[in-house]
Amino acid sequence: MLSMAQSEPPVPTTAEQVHAQNIAPSDTAATTPRPEGSIYMGGFRAPKIENVRVAVIGLGERGMPQTMHFPAIPHCEVVAVCDVYDDLAAKAANRLEQKTGKRPAVYSGSSDAYLKMLEEVKPDAVFINTSWETHAQMAIDSMEHGAHAFVEVPMAITIKDLWRVVDTSEKTKKHCMMLENVNYGREELLFLNMVRKGLIGELLHGEAAYIHELRMQMKSVERGCGSWRTYHYAGRNGNLYPTHGLGPVAQYMNIARGEDTFDRIVSFGSPAKGRAAYAKKNFPADHKWNNMEFKCGDMSNSIIKTKAGRTILVQWDETSPRPYDRKNLIQGTEGTLAGFPLRVAGERISPGANSELTEGQPGGAEIVHNGGYHQWFEGEAAEKALYAKYEHPLYKRLGEEAKKNGGHGGMDYIMLYRVIECLHNGEPMDQNVYEGALWSAVSPLSEKSVNEGGMPQEFPDFTRGDWKNTAPLPVVE
Amino acid sequence: MLSMAQSEPPVPTTAEQVHAQNIAPSDTAATTPRPEGSIYMGGFRAPKIENVRVAVIGLGERGMPQTMHFPAIPHCEVVAVCDVYDDLAAKAANRLEQKTGKRPAVYSGSSDAYLKMLEEVKPDAVFINTSWETHAQMAIDSMEHGAHAFVEVPMAITIKDLWRVVDTSEKTKKHCMMLENVNYGREELLFLNMVRKGLIGELLHGEAAYIHELRMQMKSVERGCGSWRTYHYAGRNGNLYPTHGLGPVAQYMNIARGEDTFDRIVSFGSPAKGRAAYAKKNFPADHKWNNMEFKCGDMSNSIIKTKAGRTILVQWDETSPRPYDRKNLIQGTEGTLAGFPLRVAGERISPGANSELTEGQPGGAEIVHNGGYHQWFEGEAAEKALYAKYEHPLYKRLGEEAKKNGGHGGMDYIMLYRVIECLHNGEPMDQNVYEGALWSAVSPLSEKSVNEGGMPQEFPDFTRGDWKNTAPLPVVE
Repeated sequence: MLSMAQSEPPVPTTAEQVHAQNIAPSDTAATTPRPEGSIYMGGFRAPKIENVRVAVIGLGERGMPQTMHFPAIPHCEVVAVCDVYDDLAAKAANRLEQKTGKRPAVYSGSSDAYLKMLEEVKPDAVFINTSWETHAQMAIDSMEHGAHAFVEVPMAITIKDLWRVVDTSEKTKKHCMMLENVNYGREELLFLNMVRKGLIGELLHGEAAYIHELRMQMKSVERGCGSWRTYHYAGRNGNLYPTHGLGPVAQYMNIARGEDTFDRIVSFGSPAKGRAAYAKKNFPADHKWNNMEFKCGDMSNSIIKTKAGRTILVQWDETSPRPYDRKNLIQGTEGTLAGFPLRVAGERISPGANSELTEGQPGGAEIVHNGGYHQWFEGEAAEKALYAKYEHPLYKRLGEEAKKNGGHGGMDYIMLYRVIECLHNGEPMDQNVYEGALWSAVSPLSEKSVNEGGMPQEFPDFTRGDWKNTAPLPVVE
Repeated sequence: MLSMAQSEPPVPTTAEQVHAQNIAPSDTAATTPRPEGSIYMGGFRAPKIENVRVAVIGLGERGMPQTMHFPAIPHCEVVAVCDVYDDLAAKAANRLEQKTGKRPAVYSGSSDAYLKMLEEVKPDAVFINTSWETHAQMAIDSMEHGAHAFVEVPMAITIKDLWRVVDTSEKTKKHCMMLENVNYGREELLFLNMVRKGLIGELLHGEAAYIHELRMQMKSVERGCGSWRTYHYAGRNGNLYPTHGLGPVAQYMNIARGEDTFDRIVSFGSPAKGRAAYAKKNFPADHKWNNMEFKCGDMSNSIIKTKAGRTILVQWDETSPRPYDRKNLIQGTEGTLAGFPLRVAGERISPGANSELTEGQPGGAEIVHNGGYHQWFEGEAAEKALYAKYEHPLYKRLGEEAKKNGGHGGMDYIMLYRVIECLHNGEPMDQNVYEGALWSAVSPLSEKSVNEGGMPQEFPDFTRGDWKNTAPLPVVE
């Protein structure tokens, strides 16, 4: 789930430089008309590709394991790998050669080595696993060079760059999908399937979080996540990493897909204490981490209001001593589904008089007296019953293979499998460019809201009104 | 936890009338200087009362059981009871007479019968368990008649009335305590004790909720909660009932007590669907509940930002099919405590190398490998270990008696016991008038924020700056 790739420090070396550079909160650019010759990309079908020629930029903690899934996926071949660090690019090439017998082209040694790769290799699809602030430009360059772009989360970190990505996709008619792997989690697919069946009625409210104590990343001082993420904590204050929890909730609600879209957001962050405390405890007094002000509130809280009036709580905390949590809660007029741990409530989905689950389910009989929704239906027997009845067809098809291949419990494998499958079949991507842009926009908008004392910020409509005519993500078989 | 008392419908009979009357969102009155002769009531000690002469207004679903605790509490006597409904007042008198051999004076039959009671009986303390919109005036009248006032939650429903309550308390030098019983819950007292010991470091963030599906109250059509609360759902949109979750979190943080106070709030509500759906399912088409628009969003979400920069999530939902939840989460730089179910995380409070809990604790050995805070310390063994080590002294003293007497698991008994004890000993109240006002202010401010599309609303400083010199609530022995 983490974008842990290495990339040459185009990162500045002080908090002030970070802030002065390109990752300060940006204004929401006003929507301009779609240029002549550009097309709306929601539902876009690219020409089928028999064998997808894949290139990868960024072979770090995220890119390396991600890339090693491709040999197990049909209809694709990794033809080139690129990293600013020579050793990482070479290591990836070696491992691919071991697995497939074919060695990909290797590009490395500078922050623009990827441009040379794009020119020489002309890949069909580029996978970008680099530091956050480099995602947008690499995606844009990839599309300009004729490739579909697949970008680790977030898609970009400013509203201006999100528009540039959208506009480039519309101009070049190339897909740009943000690689939100959590949308392919087994529990998330289960909930999507249950929501689509109408089991919890009309959707009212969702909760999304990324709570994951990752301060140990600061120990990667020279390269790796800590070396560049730490500057983001220093120079920015908002929800810097919103999409893992939000992506699935947005797709339950058909956000930017016909039914609804994000309207506005408010955000408040807690005091910033944990990063400085960790630096003090783990590094000498003269270390750069101890000579830097950390601006970013340890716990970030935002509420999104949608056009249809729904609410979504979005939280983020990679600093505080709390157990991992993505919330994954979706509440409707007739029931509620929640994760961490998996639990559901609702007349039809808790054991009880009107339940689809009571009869013959393990543990069903004993808990009928819970009254349908006044207690969570949870625990081992509940999970078994829910998956037995409502497992998403995509997980039924790919789950076994995913477990073997792994990657955050299999979600990485299923995601990459689907990306290649869609390119091979000429199908629309499961996450279109507007969804990636909208989910990523939470970062700069929350920064702006925090900076303005909680003022509500409107989301740009990256679809320029076309979301109303975009089909919901189908329950992929 | 519910204010279920009956009172004569001064309630209007349409949603429009509700809104036009006194429960529309009110503006935050500007702070004016404290009048000559009035005094700051934080830490106020009233003259000791040997035997507290108690009068009760409102003997409904909340007032009746609450009142029946007094005979078991030393140093007090219920000398008068009052309700708009004759039968309820008589029933309360009968039951008290049975328990104590003494019959209290009975007042009933009109909405101002309580005024006659105040004049004739001159009680030391008045307990007010009526419908929300009547709380403020009854508290004010009680203090003006020389009694200390104890008001069910919320203290008032407009900022103007909250100021009137505060100003009357300061002028008359009478206590006005809002009866937030949840602050006396066993788990809440445990957390307060743990926070005061510094076990989770500096406090950063809290979460408070009142999620309790109570639509069946709508079946009380003529009198009882449904008969008047339903109009609030129709005429207002915000968090109408914030204090059960918020009171404990505010006291963990020493809000309005020296360390910190509320600064501002933002709020968004979900669509309002559940009340109309319930009415449609349970009442004939021509029933008044089916000819009313329900404005109040089913799920209300607010974030409070404090002066010290902390954040508090406040949620409220009495409509949706979700299991009961008050969240009760408090997060610090070194750990997190959470309720529903009880679970904690932190190096010192989870089993692990630096833990105060590891040695000799049941279940300790097996979970040391959890790594201190990367998993919740929860379940039966955890609860046992936590209560064995950190039980609040007040619960140690009164817990057994509270269990016998009951009332929301004993919290009602402990609360009333403490109220009488403080009056008897001439001690400050555990919740001062400013705390009740501040916690209650979430309702009108959230309504205003919702009404203005999420605009942040500033909290009035009901202490007029004196919160800075007010002592934290001590760990009462």
